[in-house]
Amino acid sequence: MNKKIIIDCDPGQDDAMAIILAASGVSDLKIEAITTVAGNVGVGKNTVNALRVCDLTGLHDIPVAMGADRPLVQEPSEASHVHGQSGLDGTDLPEEPVKQPIDQHAVDVLIEKLLASDGDITLVPIGPLTNIALAIRKEPRIVAKIKEIAMMGGGTFGNRTPSAEFNIYADAEAARIVFESGAPITMFGLDVTHQALATPDKLAELKAIENPVAKAVADMLTFYSGAYKGNFAGAAMHDPCPIGYLIAPDIFEWDKVRVDVETTGKFTYGMTVVDFKGSTGRESNVQFARRLDSGEFWQLFLDALRSYSKS
Amino acid sequence: MNKKIIIDCDPGQDDAMAIILAASGVSDLKIEAITTVAGNVGVGKNTVNALRVCDLTGLHDIPVAMGADRPLVQEPSEASHVHGQSGLDGTDLPEEPVKQPIDQHAVDVLIEKLLASDGDITLVPIGPLTNIALAIRKEPRIVAKIKEIAMMGGGTFGNRTPSAEFNIYADAEAARIVFESGAPITMFGLDVTHQALATPDKLAELKAIENPVAKAVADMLTFYSGAYKGNFAGAAMHDPCPIGYLIAPDIFEWDKVRVDVETTGKFTYGMTVVDFKGSTGRESNVQFARRLDSGEFWQLFLDALRSYSKS
Amino acid sequence: MNKKIIIDCDPGQDDAMAIILAASGVSDLKIEAITTVAGNVGVGKNTVNALRVCDLTGLHDIPVAMGADRPLVQEPSEASHVHGQSGLDGTDLPEEPVKQPIDQHAVDVLIEKLLASDGDITLVPIGPLTNIALAIRKEPRIVAKIKEIAMMGGGTFGNRTPSAEFNIYADAEAARIVFESGAPITMFGLDVTHQALATPDKLAELKAIENPVAKAVADMLTFYSGAYKGNFAGAAMHDPCPIGYLIAPDIFEWDKVRVDVETTGKFTYGMTVVDFKGSTGRESNVQFARRLDSGEFWQLFLDALRSYSKS
Amino acid sequence: MNKKIIIDCDPGQDDAMAIILAASGVSDLKIEAITTVAGNVGVGKNTVNALRVCDLTGLHDIPVAMGADRPLVQEPSEASHVHGQSGLDGTDLPEEPVKQPIDQHAVDVLIEKLLASDGDITLVPIGPLTNIALAIRKEPRIVAKIKEIAMMGGGTFGNRTPSAEFNIYADAEAARIVFESGAPITMFGLDVTHQALATPDKLAELKAIENPVAKAVADMLTFYSGAYKGNFAGAAMHDPCPIGYLIAPDIFEWDKVRVDVETTGKFTYGMTVVDFKGSTGRESNVQFARRLDSGEFWQLFLDALRSYSKS
Repeated sequence: MNKKIIIDCDPGQDDAMAIILAASGVSDLKIEAITTVAGNVGVGKNTVNALRVCDLTGLHDIPVAMGADRPLVQEPSEASHVHGQSGLDGTDLPEEPVKQPIDQHAVDVLIEKLLASDGDITLVPIGPLTNIALAIRKEPRIVAKIKEIAMMGGGTFGNRTPSAEFNIYADAEAARIVFESGAPITMFGLDVTHQALATPDKLAELKAIENPVAKAVADMLTFYSGAYKGNFAGAAMHDPCPIGYLIAPDIFEWDKVRVDVETTGKFTYGMTVVDFKGSTGRESNVQFARRLDSGEFWQLFLDALRSYSKS
Repeated sequence: MNKKIIIDCDPGQDDAMAIILAASGVSDLKIEAITTVAGNVGVGKNTVNALRVCDLTGLHDIPVAMGADRPLVQEPSEASHVHGQSGLDGTDLPEEPVKQPIDQHAVDVLIEKLLASDGDITLVPIGPLTNIALAIRKEPRIVAKIKEIAMMGGGTFGNRTPSAEFNIYADAEAARIVFESGAPITMFGLDVTHQALATPDKLAELKAIENPVAKAVADMLTFYSGAYKGNFAGAAMHDPCPIGYLIAPDIFEWDKVRVDVETTGKFTYGMTVVDFKGSTGRESNVQFARRLDSGEFWQLFLDALRSYSKS
Repeated sequence: MNKKIIIDCDPGQDDAMAIILAASGVSDLKIEAITTVAGNVGVGKNTVNALRVCDLTGLHDIPVAMGADRPLVQEPSEASHVHGQSGLDGTDLPEEPVKQPIDQHAVDVLIEKLLASDGDITLVPIGPLTNIALAIRKEPRIVAKIKEIAMMGGGTFGNRTPSAEFNIYADAEAARIVFESGAPITMFGLDVTHQALATPDKLAELKAIENPVAKAVADMLTFYSGAYKGNFAGAAMHDPCPIGYLIAPDIFEWDKVRVDVETTGKFTYGMTVVDFKGSTGRESNVQFARRLDSGEFWQLFLDALRSYSKS
Repeated sequence: MNKKIIIDCDPGQDDAMAIILAASGVSDLKIEAITTVAGNVGVGKNTVNALRVCDLTGLHDIPVAMGADRPLVQEPSEASHVHGQSGLDGTDLPEEPVKQPIDQHAVDVLIEKLLASDGDITLVPIGPLTNIALAIRKEPRIVAKIKEIAMMGGGTFGNRTPSAEFNIYADAEAARIVFESGAPITMFGLDVTHQALATPDKLAELKAIENPVAKAVADMLTFYSGAYKGNFAGAAMHDPCPIGYLIAPDIFEWDKVRVDVETTGKFTYGMTVVDFKGSTGRESNVQFARRLDSGEFWQLFLDALRSYSKS
C-alpha cells in the first residue's frame, strides 16, 4: 500500500534532507534501498554521508549500496565548493557511521529489486544519473518495470554553467540514456526547486523545532545557504522536491513536454532542452514540474521535521 | 545631432514596422542606408520588400543595398510560414517598387560608411547577422568605428527551435563572429520582444489611425498575428524594439552580461547562452534588454504611425 | 603456464574463425570465457552463433555469457549486409546449438574473472567495446587486473564510413572509455587486418583440408568474401589477428602511439585518430599493429585448421 | 592561349617556390593576380613576402592584393615554427620590397577578375581558404565562372594535428564552404606533396644552379628543411605541386572522390575526409592527386630555376 522507492543520491545537504523527509512521520513512502553515486563529492564520501543520515533517522534496516565512482564518458566534476569537503559540512553528526553498506553494487541492487518487483517501484535519483544509466544498459528489461523516475536535475537555466544544472552536467551522457529510455520521468529542475527557498523566516521556524534531526537540518541549511548568498533569497531545497511530490503531489503543477539532453554543445553541454510549445513535433517524455506551492511545501517539510522524536 | 543608423534587415512585417518607426515623425534617427540579407525569405524578395517600404514611407533618398544571399557556413533556413510567400504578405502595397537598389554590395556599403564616419554610426541588424559578419571579416578596422550594434535576435528561449531564435539560428556562425568581435552590442531578444505584443486592444487602436502607412501596418499585423495565435496574446513586435530603444532608451531596462552563441550543439545550435550570474567569469559583451514598458512602447509606436500624412 | 584469455565477440564469420584459431591444436591459449555483445547482428543471434562455434570446436566446458544488447549512448548500427541475416551465413552448422549460455551477465563474468585473477588474463575484444566499457565503469578496480587488451578495431581508414571501422563506430563512446582507461592495449586495426586477405590461392589451400571445422571455415569465407568483391583481393581476416598475435607475436610489427577515439565529428564519428609522429605530445596508450607477415599468418591459420580431427 | 591563374597564398617558403615556378621560363601560365591571406604568418608579413618574391622574379606588373587577416570563424593559428618569424626565413632577399600592393581587397580582386572573365581563370589557393570562401559568400555568381580550383591542402593524414593539414586546419569553415561550393576542385594534399621531397641529392643539384632566383630557393629550402629533419627524407614541396600540375598535368595521377571537411570533431577538426570507395554514396566533388612522378617533377622544377637569368 505504501509507495516503494529507491533513492539514488550523492549526499549532499539537500540529499540528506530528501532522505529525512522520506523517512519522516509524514511520509507514506517505503524506502527499498538507498544507492549512492559520485557527484557532489566522491562516491566514497557520499556513501559515508548516506550512512550517517541513516544512523540519524533510524533507517537501520534499509540497504545502502555504493555505485559508480565517476561519470560514464566525460571527466568527473564535483561540487565541494557548495557542500564542503565532506559533502555534508555544517553538521556535528558523528564522522564515522555505525551502519555499513551492503556488499552488492548499486547497479545490481537497482536491477534485482526492479526485476523482482510488480512494477511498483519509483526511482528517485537526486544525483548524477550514472547508476540508473548503467543499470538500464546492463539490464534493459528494467525499463518496463520502473513505475516512475521522480528526479531532481536540469531546468531551463543552469547553476553549474549558465545553461546546465549540476546533476545533468556531471554526467550528461547518462542523463541522455535515461531521458531516451522510455521510462516515465517526472523532473524537478531548477525552475521549480528555486521556488522552494530556505528564506530566513523559514530557517527561523525550522530552528525552533527541538529534536536532533531538526537540529542537524538547521545546521546543514545554515552552512549550505552560504553558497546562495547574494544571488538568492535563500538556499534552494532541490532534492526534497521529488520526495515532497511523492508524498503530496498536489503541491506541484506540471507540463507534459519533450526534454532532450545536450551532449555536444560547447556552451550547452548538460543542458536539458525543454520544448514547451511542441515545436519539435516530438512526443513528450517528461512531466516537467513548473510550479510548487511554497507555503504548502514548507508546511510539509516542517511537519516532517517535527515528526522526529526529541532524543 | 541626429543619431545615424544603418538598418540591416530581411523584411518581414516586423522589419517593415521597424523602418516605419525609424522614418516617422517621432524619430530623431538619420537612416544612412538600408542593407538587406537572406533571412525571412530570400535576399531578392527581402530587397524588394525594403524598397516597397521606402516607397510607402517616402525614403526616396536612402540608399538600399542588397547583401548576402545565404548564411556563412550552414545550410539556409527561412520563415515564409510566418511572413508569407512574399515575406510581406497581408498588405496591398504595389508589388513592384518604384525605388531601385544601388549597385554596391551591402557589405561594401557597411564598410565604406563606417570607415568614412566619425565613429557615430549605430548598426541596427534585425535579420541574420551574415552581412555584419562578412563586413567584419573583410575589413576588421570597422569594429572600432561602430558606435553600437542595436540588434534583434536571440533570447533565453527560442522560436525557431526550443532553444534558438530565428535570426541567430539562421546564421549562428555569423552571430558568433559579431558577438566575439568586441563591438558594443545591445541585444533585443525574445525575452523583451515578447513584452511588446500586438494585443487586440492595441490592434484596434492602431486600426483607428487613418493614413496609408498606418493602414499598411494594420494589414501586416493582422496577417502576421496569425502565426502567434493560440500560443500568445498577440504578435511580438520584434524588430521595432531596437529602433524604439534608439529613439527612447528609457523605455527599456537591461543587464550587462556575457552572451555566447552556441554553434555545435545538437539541440542548441543557434542558442544565445546568457550568463546572468557571471558564473563563467568572462567579461560582459552585451547590454541585454530585460524589460520594456509596454505602455510607453505602444504610445511611441502609435504616435509614430499618427505622424504620417493622410495621403 | 598457458595464456588465459576472455574472448568478447559478436560472431560474425571472422569472430568464429578467431575462436576456432584460439581453440585449435596450435594454440597455447586457455579460454576462460566467451562473452557476447551486440554488433554484427543483435546480441541474441551473436550468442547463438558463439554457442554453435563452441559445439563445432568442442568447447563444451567454456562458459558463454551474453552481454550488452546495444551501444552505450548512440543508436545501434549493425552489419548484416556483410555477415548475413544470421550473422554467420554460409555454413551448414546446426541452427540450434546444443550448448547453452550461463545465466550470468557478460559484464559480471568479466569483473568476477578479472578480480579473482592474478592479473594474468588478456581480454580479446573483437566486437564493439560495450561490455568492456560497462565492466570498467561498474568496477574500476578491474583495470589494474587486465594483463592486456588485444583487440580488433579501428585503423587509419574505415570500412563503416570513410574514416571509421565498424567495431569502433558501433560504440565510439565505449571505445573512448576503454582507450582512456589506462589498460595496456594492443590494437589490430584495418591497416594490419587488410594485410591478412583470404586470397583465392589461400582459399583453395584451405578448402583442401578435410575436416568439419575446416569445411565450416571454407563455407564461411566463401560467403564472407562476397562483401569484399571488387574492392579487395580477398576477405580480410580481421578477428583472427589478435588471436594470431597472442599465439605467435613475432608475426607482427608495431608502433607505440597515442590513439584517441573521435566521438563528436560529423564525418569522423568513431574514427581512431593515431598520432604516429608524437605531434600531440601525449603519452602513448596503444601498441598499434602496423604490419604482419602474411605468409606466416596463413601458415599458422592453416595449421590450426589441420589440427582439428577428421570427424 | 596561356592558362590564366590567380595565386592565393601566404608565403611561406613553399608559396614562394610556387610563384617562382609559375613565373619561370618553363611555365605557360599567365598570373592575373596574387592575393594574400593570413596563414603561415600574419597577412601583413605574407603580403610583404609575396612582394619580395615578385621583386626577385620580375613580376613587376602583376597586381598583389592583401586579403583576410584571420580565419572566418575559429581563432587564428599560424606556423612560424616552420617558416621562421618573417614567414620567409633563410634568404637574404631585401627585407623591404620595392613593389607595392594595390589598394583593392583580395576578395574584390577575385570577384572582379572572375566576373569579368570568360570562365577561363584557374584559382590556385596555397594557403588557408578564407579569401576564396569570403568571395564565394559575397558574390555567389563567381562559382560558375571558376574554371578550376587547383589547391594545396588536406590529405588522409595531417601535419598540424595527426589528422589535419595546416591550410585546412587554419580555417576549416572556409574550406568547407569551398568544398561544398560546387566549383571543380583538384586537391594536392599531403599524400602527394610528400612524394615531392627535397632530398639531399635534389638539394645538391639545385645548389649547383647559378642565378639569384635559384640561390634564393636554395637558401629557403635549406632553412625550411630544418622542420622536416628526423621524420622525413627531405622537405615536402607542398605549394609548387598545383603549379606543377597546371604546367605539366601528366606528372600526376588522381582519383575522383567525395571529400568532406570536418568542422566539429574534437580530434579531427580540419580533417579532409576522403571517400575512396564511394561508401557514402555521395557525388564526387574533388579530383584527388594520389601520385606524382617525383623524377619528372624535379626535372620540371630544376628546369624552371635554370630558366632564370644569371643576374
